[in-house]
Amino acid sequence: MEVNRKGFASDNNAGVHPEILKEIESSNAGHVLAYGSDSYTERAEELFKEHLGFDTEVYFVFTGTAANVLGLSSILHSWNSVITAFTAHIEQDECGAPEKFTGCKVLTVDTPDGKINPGMLEKHIHGFGFEHHSQPKVISITQATEMGTVYTPDEIKKLASYAHERGMLLHMDGARIANAAVSLNLPFREFTTSAGVDVLSFGGTKNGMMYGEAICFLKPGLSDGFKYIRKQGMQLASKMRFISAQYIAYFRNDLWKRNAGHSNRMAQMLAERIAGIPGLKITQPVQSNGVFVIMPGEVAEKVSREYFFYSWNEMLSEYRLMTSWDTTPEDIDKFAVMLENEMK
Amino acid sequence: MEVNRKGFASDNNAGVHPEILKEIESSNAGHVLAYGSDSYTERAEELFKEHLGFDTEVYFVFTGTAANVLGLSSILHSWNSVITAFTAHIEQDECGAPEKFTGCKVLTVDTPDGKINPGMLEKHIHGFGFEHHSQPKVISITQATEMGTVYTPDEIKKLASYAHERGMLLHMDGARIANAAVSLNLPFREFTTSAGVDVLSFGGTKNGMMYGEAICFLKPGLSDGFKYIRKQGMQLASKMRFISAQYIAYFRNDLWKRNAGHSNRMAQMLAERIAGIPGLKITQPVQSNGVFVIMPGEVAEKVSREYFFYSWNEMLSEYRLMTSWDTTPEDIDKFAVMLENEMK
Amino acid sequence: MEVNRKGFASDNNAGVHPEILKEIESSNAGHVLAYGSDSYTERAEELFKEHLGFDTEVYFVFTGTAANVLGLSSILHSWNSVITAFTAHIEQDECGAPEKFTGCKVLTVDTPDGKINPGMLEKHIHGFGFEHHSQPKVISITQATEMGTVYTPDEIKKLASYAHERGMLLHMDGARIANAAVSLNLPFREFTTSAGVDVLSFGGTKNGMMYGEAICFLKPGLSDGFKYIRKQGMQLASKMRFISAQYIAYFRNDLWKRNAGHSNRMAQMLAERIAGIPGLKITQPVQSNGVFVIMPGEVAEKVSREYFFYSWNEMLSEYRLMTSWDTTPEDIDKFAVMLENEMK
Amino acid sequence: MEVNRKGFASDNNAGVHPEILKEIESSNAGHVLAYGSDSYTERAEELFKEHLGFDTEVYFVFTGTAANVLGLSSILHSWNSVITAFTAHIEQDECGAPEKFTGCKVLTVDTPDGKINPGMLEKHIHGFGFEHHSQPKVISITQATEMGTVYTPDEIKKLASYAHERGMLLHMDGARIANAAVSLNLPFREFTTSAGVDVLSFGGTKNGMMYGEAICFLKPGLSDGFKYIRKQGMQLASKMRFISAQYIAYFRNDLWKRNAGHSNRMAQMLAERIAGIPGLKITQPVQSNGVFVIMPGEVAEKVSREYFFYSWNEMLSEYRLMTSWDTTPEDIDKFAVMLENEMK
Repeated sequence: MEVNRKGFASDNNAGVHPEILKEIESSNAGHVLAYGSDSYTERAEELFKEHLGFDTEVYFVFTGTAANVLGLSSILHSWNSVITAFTAHIEQDECGAPEKFTGCKVLTVDTPDGKINPGMLEKHIHGFGFEHHSQPKVISITQATEMGTVYTPDEIKKLASYAHERGMLLHMDGARIANAAVSLNLPFREFTTSAGVDVLSFGGTKNGMMYGEAICFLKPGLSDGFKYIRKQGMQLASKMRFISAQYIAYFRNDLWKRNAGHSNRMAQMLAERIAGIPGLKITQPVQSNGVFVIMPGEVAEKVSREYFFYSWNEMLSEYRLMTSWDTTPEDIDKFAVMLENEMK
Repeated sequence: MEVNRKGFASDNNAGVHPEILKEIESSNAGHVLAYGSDSYTERAEELFKEHLGFDTEVYFVFTGTAANVLGLSSILHSWNSVITAFTAHIEQDECGAPEKFTGCKVLTVDTPDGKINPGMLEKHIHGFGFEHHSQPKVISITQATEMGTVYTPDEIKKLASYAHERGMLLHMDGARIANAAVSLNLPFREFTTSAGVDVLSFGGTKNGMMYGEAICFLKPGLSDGFKYIRKQGMQLASKMRFISAQYIAYFRNDLWKRNAGHSNRMAQMLAERIAGIPGLKITQPVQSNGVFVIMPGEVAEKVSREYFFYSWNEMLSEYRLMTSWDTTPEDIDKFAVMLENEMK
Repeated sequence: MEVNRKGFASDNNAGVHPEILKEIESSNAGHVLAYGSDSYTERAEELFKEHLGFDTEVYFVFTGTAANVLGLSSILHSWNSVITAFTAHIEQDECGAPEKFTGCKVLTVDTPDGKINPGMLEKHIHGFGFEHHSQPKVISITQATEMGTVYTPDEIKKLASYAHERGMLLHMDGARIANAAVSLNLPFREFTTSAGVDVLSFGGTKNGMMYGEAICFLKPGLSDGFKYIRKQGMQLASKMRFISAQYIAYFRNDLWKRNAGHSNRMAQMLAERIAGIPGLKITQPVQSNGVFVIMPGEVAEKVSREYFFYSWNEMLSEYRLMTSWDTTPEDIDKFAVMLENEMK
Repeated sequence: MEVNRKGFASDNNAGVHPEILKEIESSNAGHVLAYGSDSYTERAEELFKEHLGFDTEVYFVFTGTAANVLGLSSILHSWNSVITAFTAHIEQDECGAPEKFTGCKVLTVDTPDGKINPGMLEKHIHGFGFEHHSQPKVISITQATEMGTVYTPDEIKKLASYAHERGMLLHMDGARIANAAVSLNLPFREFTTSAGVDVLSFGGTKNGMMYGEAICFLKPGLSDGFKYIRKQGMQLASKMRFISAQYIAYFRNDLWKRNAGHSNRMAQMLAERIAGIPGLKITQPVQSNGVFVIMPGEVAEKVSREYFFYSWNEMLSEYRLMTSWDTTPEDIDKFAVMLENEMK
């Protein structure tokens, strides 16, 4: 089949980075024990400990939704609640998987930019010990957020302290954690384990992998029975080595950083070009690989025939443009030129 | 890493067939829409219709457990029950995923060889309309069974009639459906759609694929809302093309048949060799790619250090030996020689 | 034991009206079939049809939470969402029972007075057909609301139309429906069935009954399989006649109206007295049997030692005072005098 | 309405004992705090401690199904399994409530008389630590059983030891525990707490109460968070005092023993009369208040028009006759005479 045209719809529309594919191939030799009792998985687990700290326990699953839901499931009783941003993936884009699997309430707060701060949480922080009320237990943040913004380590520490002081835990949805790390120019550990995060969904698919996400328990004692949760959650891979191999390649020579760095730079370039087009308005700080822009509906409609992307907020005529590890300056240039012409 | 030694533990311990890997690579070009709105998925869906009938609706998921659980979920209310063999994967090997996700009861019948017949079902077929009792709704069979045996089309038709006469449905767990098709020397359709099966889990991973199973609704009207079930079940692949591409390769030039035919033949060869060793007893008809054998525990212990395989029934000292698409006559010969020596 | 002092904590703190008790006694003769196949239940069902319309199907359960959750369960798939007021009982006071039992999302809107209107719903009304997003299916309102306010029939009709135009349904939590009927001076049917409500939780416990609430399906086709849902939901009463008998008494000679009318009048009296005390502020229209008042914390603390009542909003120093069928003018007078003295 | 004719269908068809009703009335004075923070509940809790041991924690719910399901829920993770008799109420008569609420597997063993012994359990006791397999965690027995038989303390101790040696727990469904206590002529404690039972469903409704069952945690540390489980399970009574008052009456002057003793004696009398009728065959030892008898279908059909009772096993033409606290010798005599005539 012909090569497929690139767009700005999602980093999930991109393919797999060649180094990942190559590692899959090279792990495809002979027999290994199924379900993760293999040397590739052992190696991948070591790499996660190197990046996130020695206490890290990592479990691989297939999708980001599964990483969020099963990770949360391990630290929640069904009578608990999770508090998150209204824009969070677990609220908007998982079709109720958290509620279905955990039985918990997901409570939301409105934010201007996808980022929660302690002051916003007060309306949900009450009723402790009152049996009529779902007991608040987890604050869940997304890094980088669904709005393309990035929490600083200090912001995360404040949320972790707020949670821990109340007997609660901090969960991070890191579907785009590599983009955040590059944006902050910090190692993963600095804004996760060291900032007080308890459970982390560590994503790779949106940054050049084929499939496979990692649930990372960053402190001891949080994953009791988790192997059963994963299996009962239908997320235990039989040929696990092919997820593990991808992570081996992902961490080798900082592939994760090269990919995320590239897509972040492409987002900057895209934002700069858009900023130069009269009549368009960028609505969020461009801190990772997403650009949110208000443009006339008919322009969006025309341009998106050539370069597919999504409407974010119909009422505002706001659109989301995502760059990915394989976006090129030429892609951006051509797109910007077309956009510019349509705006004339 | 070094090439890993082959054993007889599971067809999941084998790697990926080169034609599958090659197809993954060739589908890795440019951008396609995520989540299944791509031409690879469209093509794969057509292939399933060709093999299973025009009314077939197919949805890809990651694991066999997910295929069973989500497929069942689509045709069950939580107050229903599913009847299956005591040895069935959904009963023994899914850690309660069916109960957790569907809320249903799984009822079992004892069988000598993993195969259900209508006479066995009577003990569970009662209480229709009685609100205290879970309402029987689905009969679930495995083809080939977990015991390596294979249902004939006629046996399946009898179960389908039995189910349909009672307002029930027939589900097939086809994790090893290719091995069954080769064993019967019949196209898939003959013992699925044409035999009255309603919902089918069509497996590929155990027969040379990397990951990805297919839920096939073989009649119209069974999959209402299923796209939401799959997403809420955490089984919607973002980069779907890489599952679809595998199935394209799997059906091309009958790769499925070549792989399954080979592993079935290897099982026959293995069985013949074992039958020739005094003191060993084969306990099940060898109709697909599994051989069940009673051997002394200490022999099993020694041999399995070199060629890993699983204990099936400790009380009987019964062991399961699985062949796979990459098992070679040499593997079998060496294994048989070692076994023979240990039995002397 | 001594007679217990009355307070203003909850209409649940009151006992059982003598006419209810008497009917329980008179139904306690000989044997009747268990689980609702008895003449008392038949009679109670007729009464519900008289009050709510011929198409009404009624199922009794034990608690208001169960009435809400099981009624909703009948009209929801797990991938649906329910939209309700942030102050709703299903959101704040059911410990996540709706999510646990249905698997659905509960989405909320902020309201000044516990009442939803269509304009508030927009933020949640999107994503139809998009598999990543929980599909909006039910709007749930409380009548009278948790804030003591009451929807007019016209307001309910607008919400019903809004729902039905979008393929959604309207659910009413009528834990205090009698108070609303009295407040509106209308028969039940006028603001339920005739106003487009689809499923109704009809409460009695807060208005003089001992236990037992009714789930009313107001239109045909909404209760398929509901008898199994109720049983699986652990809400099928064995000695059903004692719930049914209570409803027979409840509807006889308009006991429901006498009780609710009384408690509503007591709330008016209480509100008038409070309004006359300088320094106190009533925060909600008093339309049923609740009075919300801002008072100094130390005053509330002292007075509540004698007449127990609940804090509603700590930050605002807002308290909730509920009257009940057995509140007397003397109770109110003594309470008001005490409050007045403390405020001096 | 006229007094209803007594039959032998179920002890649930009987009404409420006058002493119970009287206590309900006398507790109906003034206001008490809702949801169990009242002196009646405090007193009832003390009584349970007196009968079952000081460490007992008791929580009231509405139905026997709820007592079983919520009690089990407290000691199970969703990836666990419960092993019980095929005839158990949790398997046959709760419409899948255990699976729906806990997510667990319920595994069964066949028994001749409803009673489990350790030897029967072996087929399910394996796979510990193997993530593919639901982890066995609870053995659940019914006392008296659904077949009218009674476990001795020694039999229970053996099951408790068997469970505890494997890290498992012993649950008892005591829907008819009073009948068992009378049959054994032992205090409750002797065959529950002292015999190693961990969690007990203590029933009252079948023995003269109106509604309300008790979940008893017999050892410390088993009920963490249970108050939330009960509320989320829709089983928290608002006017709790009316359940508690019933238990106060139930334990006063051994009402439980008088009622159960009477119904047990009536069962003995009934069995003796049936044994004297040629052509009838009693199939189970009569140890509590149930008599199982094989009789010709046409005889059963005729007699049950006057005295309703249930078919137990259609294939065997076996019927179940239950006596209750209000069965009289005259009831039995008339029934026996009619039966005798029909058998001639």
